[in-house]
Amino acid sequence: MNKKKIINDPVYGFITLPYDSIYDVIQHPWFQRLRRIQQLGLSNLVYPSAVHTRFQHTLGALHLMGLALEVLKSKKIIISDLECEAACLAILMHDIGHGPFSHALEKELAPVHHEEISSYIMNDLNKQLNGKLSLALKIFNNDYEKKYLHQLVSSQLDVDRLDYLNRDSFFTGVAEGVIGYDRIIKMLNVHEDNLVVEEKGIYSIEKFIVSRRLMYWQVYLHKTVVAAEQMLIKVIHRAKYLTSQGKEVFGSPSLKVFLDSKNISAKNIDEWLPMFMKLDDTDIYSALKVWQHHDDKILSYLSDGIINRKLFKVSFQSATFNTQIIKQEKEKTKKYFKLENDSDIDYYMVVNSTSNSAYNKQTGQIYIMQKGNTIKDIAYASDQLNISVLSAPVVKHFICSWKN
Amino acid sequence: MNKKKIINDPVYGFITLPYDSIYDVIQHPWFQRLRRIQQLGLSNLVYPSAVHTRFQHTLGALHLMGLALEVLKSKKIIISDLECEAACLAILMHDIGHGPFSHALEKELAPVHHEEISSYIMNDLNKQLNGKLSLALKIFNNDYEKKYLHQLVSSQLDVDRLDYLNRDSFFTGVAEGVIGYDRIIKMLNVHEDNLVVEEKGIYSIEKFIVSRRLMYWQVYLHKTVVAAEQMLIKVIHRAKYLTSQGKEVFGSPSLKVFLDSKNISAKNIDEWLPMFMKLDDTDIYSALKVWQHHDDKILSYLSDGIINRKLFKVSFQSATFNTQIIKQEKEKTKKYFKLENDSDIDYYMVVNSTSNSAYNKQTGQIYIMQKGNTIKDIAYASDQLNISVLSAPVVKHFICSWKN
Amino acid sequence: MNKKKIINDPVYGFITLPYDSIYDVIQHPWFQRLRRIQQLGLSNLVYPSAVHTRFQHTLGALHLMGLALEVLKSKKIIISDLECEAACLAILMHDIGHGPFSHALEKELAPVHHEEISSYIMNDLNKQLNGKLSLALKIFNNDYEKKYLHQLVSSQLDVDRLDYLNRDSFFTGVAEGVIGYDRIIKMLNVHEDNLVVEEKGIYSIEKFIVSRRLMYWQVYLHKTVVAAEQMLIKVIHRAKYLTSQGKEVFGSPSLKVFLDSKNISAKNIDEWLPMFMKLDDTDIYSALKVWQHHDDKILSYLSDGIINRKLFKVSFQSATFNTQIIKQEKEKTKKYFKLENDSDIDYYMVVNSTSNSAYNKQTGQIYIMQKGNTIKDIAYASDQLNISVLSAPVVKHFICSWKN
Amino acid sequence: MNKKKIINDPVYGFITLPYDSIYDVIQHPWFQRLRRIQQLGLSNLVYPSAVHTRFQHTLGALHLMGLALEVLKSKKIIISDLECEAACLAILMHDIGHGPFSHALEKELAPVHHEEISSYIMNDLNKQLNGKLSLALKIFNNDYEKKYLHQLVSSQLDVDRLDYLNRDSFFTGVAEGVIGYDRIIKMLNVHEDNLVVEEKGIYSIEKFIVSRRLMYWQVYLHKTVVAAEQMLIKVIHRAKYLTSQGKEVFGSPSLKVFLDSKNISAKNIDEWLPMFMKLDDTDIYSALKVWQHHDDKILSYLSDGIINRKLFKVSFQSATFNTQIIKQEKEKTKKYFKLENDSDIDYYMVVNSTSNSAYNKQTGQIYIMQKGNTIKDIAYASDQLNISVLSAPVVKHFICSWKN
Repeated sequence: MNKKKIINDPVYGFITLPYDSIYDVIQHPWFQRLRRIQQLGLSNLVYPSAVHTRFQHTLGALHLMGLALEVLKSKKIIISDLECEAACLAILMHDIGHGPFSHALEKELAPVHHEEISSYIMNDLNKQLNGKLSLALKIFNNDYEKKYLHQLVSSQLDVDRLDYLNRDSFFTGVAEGVIGYDRIIKMLNVHEDNLVVEEKGIYSIEKFIVSRRLMYWQVYLHKTVVAAEQMLIKVIHRAKYLTSQGKEVFGSPSLKVFLDSKNISAKNIDEWLPMFMKLDDTDIYSALKVWQHHDDKILSYLSDGIINRKLFKVSFQSATFNTQIIKQEKEKTKKYFKLENDSDIDYYMVVNSTSNSAYNKQTGQIYIMQKGNTIKDIAYASDQLNISVLSAPVVKHFICSWKN
Repeated sequence: MNKKKIINDPVYGFITLPYDSIYDVIQHPWFQRLRRIQQLGLSNLVYPSAVHTRFQHTLGALHLMGLALEVLKSKKIIISDLECEAACLAILMHDIGHGPFSHALEKELAPVHHEEISSYIMNDLNKQLNGKLSLALKIFNNDYEKKYLHQLVSSQLDVDRLDYLNRDSFFTGVAEGVIGYDRIIKMLNVHEDNLVVEEKGIYSIEKFIVSRRLMYWQVYLHKTVVAAEQMLIKVIHRAKYLTSQGKEVFGSPSLKVFLDSKNISAKNIDEWLPMFMKLDDTDIYSALKVWQHHDDKILSYLSDGIINRKLFKVSFQSATFNTQIIKQEKEKTKKYFKLENDSDIDYYMVVNSTSNSAYNKQTGQIYIMQKGNTIKDIAYASDQLNISVLSAPVVKHFICSWKN
Repeated sequence: MNKKKIINDPVYGFITLPYDSIYDVIQHPWFQRLRRIQQLGLSNLVYPSAVHTRFQHTLGALHLMGLALEVLKSKKIIISDLECEAACLAILMHDIGHGPFSHALEKELAPVHHEEISSYIMNDLNKQLNGKLSLALKIFNNDYEKKYLHQLVSSQLDVDRLDYLNRDSFFTGVAEGVIGYDRIIKMLNVHEDNLVVEEKGIYSIEKFIVSRRLMYWQVYLHKTVVAAEQMLIKVIHRAKYLTSQGKEVFGSPSLKVFLDSKNISAKNIDEWLPMFMKLDDTDIYSALKVWQHHDDKILSYLSDGIINRKLFKVSFQSATFNTQIIKQEKEKTKKYFKLENDSDIDYYMVVNSTSNSAYNKQTGQIYIMQKGNTIKDIAYASDQLNISVLSAPVVKHFICSWKN
Repeated sequence: MNKKKIINDPVYGFITLPYDSIYDVIQHPWFQRLRRIQQLGLSNLVYPSAVHTRFQHTLGALHLMGLALEVLKSKKIIISDLECEAACLAILMHDIGHGPFSHALEKELAPVHHEEISSYIMNDLNKQLNGKLSLALKIFNNDYEKKYLHQLVSSQLDVDRLDYLNRDSFFTGVAEGVIGYDRIIKMLNVHEDNLVVEEKGIYSIEKFIVSRRLMYWQVYLHKTVVAAEQMLIKVIHRAKYLTSQGKEVFGSPSLKVFLDSKNISAKNIDEWLPMFMKLDDTDIYSALKVWQHHDDKILSYLSDGIINRKLFKVSFQSATFNTQIIKQEKEKTKKYFKLENDSDIDYYMVVNSTSNSAYNKQTGQIYIMQKGNTIKDIAYASDQLNISVLSAPVVKHFICSWKN
């Protein structure tokens, strides 16, 4: 059987599966599941075309990994075929641990660190595939001597980011987020086992950093998206509460496991993991649709809001909100919904903050290789980009609550 | 409240909602539901990026309607503001009657003619909106004197087709399906109340017809898509059978209504319609995921196949299949799955045919307006396009069955 | 010196020069000259953005050659590095013999067969490059055993056509001409030393043929383009006539050589060829600009027309024009311009015809490789494409004359 | 005659000429001349596809003007039809005063301020068109009370810039320069007669400023482009010198007028302007081609260099160059070319600097309209963009000289 499939992709034209092992991983039910997990969760409530999935994104990142490896090899970096295959497998697995609506729900559904789940899954998959992923796992975990292979999978300039910025721009229709991924990749090189960017690529890197910031505030942390995510967190929280009270709450068998939080802890991960690998967006959506008609007013109010796009309103500001204002708002809410318990107010109203920095040196740096192989952090190599500004996290405080 | 929203769209850049009434219809839960119905059903199993929804498509068709009306008005065709608004509302509603996986499942879920359901829904919606849709309905049903308004909504060259060919090409990544929608629209005109295309647009129309054919065989009727759809039909059929036998079959409350076929007939449409308007793709997917683990082997085999992309293989040919071959294949199947009942063989194997004609004169013609306002069917106006060839339906027979 | 340059291209993103020899040919003044010869001559009078040059087109064809060779090698066709390099060099030279406004002017400027000039040039260049082009020339001239390499350079489906259809669509803005060049290339294969297309590519090939026809009638043979080209032929003809009469006519030294037709014949090609390799569009344009103010009324009328876009009007029809009508038209012309000589009428009026067939079996066929390696002409492999229709040349007769 | 032509454009799809007067200006020989002046001069030596012309750019800016006016009118800004027409005419004329290779050659060819020439031309054209341009001229010269109309034509955020950044990115293939022109235009508004951007557009504006910087250093001031331009300035300078010495130098009659600098001054502009309006790129190119073979070694060396792309090498640095290094370099040059006069060294070597600031407050500001109609400079409205950095001019010093 020919496993070197060619797959159409609107972003890159065609994506070729380069190794038989790649095909085998893709065929695995855990990977097929990514077809049913949207990359941007609830962002489609603002950008209706942004319903693309983690499956597509992962294939895209795989494609870019192939291009990057070709470029490095053409620059006389010696990378064996086995290493190339392992790097491709590593990127293929980078999202396999994600659950539905990942960032929003991960804490509510499985209160275990995302990376721990991922690591558990990959090891398990490696066993199922008779150790074929061993080298890939070493690269993934940064345990392999050629550090640049890990950096291609996970760093400030990895193929994951290159693909998602590109793909999310494409599908949201926010054309300004588009980055010169092909130029950046052509400019990659290796210096003392680290991934670096040749000096000619400096403007493309600057553009990449600015695009990333734009995408954060215009898409990922868009007011309305934040509102919808807060509602989703609250509604799952409520469903868990009702479950704990012995109330019947509709759900697929897999979802029900996670609504009953007694079941879930870091210790018994091997028990619930198989159920976690069955969860996807459709479990959540089909539950929300049923919950719209539940007796519990909080559950039905929030479910109806998400399903029929009647979303909280959000105010962003750079300072924290005045406690007096918060108090008034809470009282208004209590009265409007005729709430008996003060603790229920929090289902209708969230006071919180969100933050982002366009270039985060703490999680790794982007190195520019100047003439004569001098290496500089982009922060110092750029003549104009003010990295101190871009790397300071921007914090935005918000109040998110019902409209009337 | 400002209802003239601007929506990002990767295909057209921006789409503006032109009237308050448009916004009101879009806000309705029946319309929001289209966010959860994919335009191409199971085609994403072949084209992973083709997960775009009927919601996006409808907004796209609305956008093209706006452009088309502008073009006609610039050519001194008098169309009032009320008529424009009604034409926009009419196109907005054209897909509102679709259920999940529309073409594949419509007969299994609700054995009532699609158009009958749609008509029922629109009338109901019109009541809910206090008659605001009355003129739109007249246009939709071709009861309005300016026939070209209906033809923009539904004809061989309507904005529905222009958008879906364009959008489906875009999201599948099948770049060759791209049509010159903007050029075609610029060439529209009206002659004796009929929509016509000016002669300069003739090559664009030819290209449109050829693109349509290409999309049919390369996307809509792609072998693997046909296989998946047959499996979906079969699995729903089985779930209904098990339900009729009193077996417990998981499903959301709305889906369960339709699995029990005693409930559903053309006569009691008003009873089950509210439930139908709650169904979407997520009901089907979340059921299939549970059904994978059902005791019934047929149900679990088919569900597992769709969810994890282990699909039937398909052979297409232009002649009907030899009955001897079919017989042998059936016996092989019976033996392989150790089936007791002959009737169960049909769950694992489908012999059927599919057909398509690129230009179907019976469902309406495309008229070219030549110099001096002479009107000709595209079939006779083109110097090369062989319409007799393109309008003859191509029939392909297929056998679709399990792989081993 | 690193000669493996990367060049930005709006159509393909980046084009890499794969061999040092490629860079050397590109650096040659004869190749640099292609920067000053527009691919579509006077078509920019209708499509203002179509000012792209033969230089860009040749780089594009080189890029596609690289992709095609990669695809064939991935299918286990053995092609040596030297053969790859030679095929790339061959495509690089395919346009090097073109003069300014090639098709329109080739007969007027140098009444020698285009291919003869090209062959002469390539041999000369090969000498200058010490025989580096020898294998490339064998491929170019179809003297090499692996016929498919020649077919990639020149056949019904060569990379020349794939690039120019794609590129001309792109720059004219006639989006409908876009072809699935990447899909077609992915489907290429070799059978008994001939280039073939795998069956899965059949719809893309059909689309390619239809696009080609569309581009012919919408761009290459667009009425206004035909008019401008006829005027250009006439004005050069007149300049030659005036030169032969001893009248002073402005021109660069190279152009003047060709205006004096006594100088130019097939026999003394080695004498005038160096001057021919200096000619480009700018010689013609700068002459036309001066000629606008020449004493000779015919010369100035035609020059002014081209430079300031006051073009002849054209009528196309499928039948030949009635001789009576032609006669009347001629008389009107004579009177209007107060012409003394009947022979001068032809400067203001052209009666001629143009023809094109979308698929021309006589100049080579497109072969489809069906399952089991059966080979069929696309004409018989397609279930719908009516090749008899598409391969019959369409003849259009035209009268092209002054407006009043 | 229908003058509302539709023109294909690869960047925007279609451009419609909105008024008869627009068509009339476009038909004028002075406007048609822009077909023969490339937008980016010699940049095509680095980006071969960047041969697009000022003609296309002007049509593009016209298109964006139409969109911008529509947006403002939809926001209840009252703009009469006459004002719209005048704004369109004003943008149509914004480049009409450009000569060939504008920035590079304007001082050499006509040592008169560019704006003075433009103003003279527009007034003359207005006379020829019987005063039809009077209101357009008022807007152009900022003499009209609705200042925002002028700002659409000429300001930090005018449709000229929006089009050229967009178009130059498109044709160079530098995808990263792409800006969200459509989003920016949708966000335009008017406040106290000034053009402002609504707050939602702030990230798009930031991106616009960063793109602009990227385009400056990657395209407009690309090393090789700077080198070619310096050579062009020098070669024209030499041709003028030779002319002043009574040496015969080839040129079209119009070019010769400008090579003889005795002819040209600010005072006798009315004498030479008609000749200036005949000059375009083809005069320069056809002269350079002849000059390659001139007896004067300097003239032929430089001409050959530009025509055959044998360009000076350039070193950029942020500090000024050491005078000692310059001296050495000069001596090397003198020796290498066996120059007799020290003054001739400057033909082979240029020491100079170039500078650019991404956002230049001195030439006008970009205003953001925040909630409650507060107006802020983008410099203070943005939470991250460090305007002090972006608005400080970056100066780069360069030495540009022959390679050996």
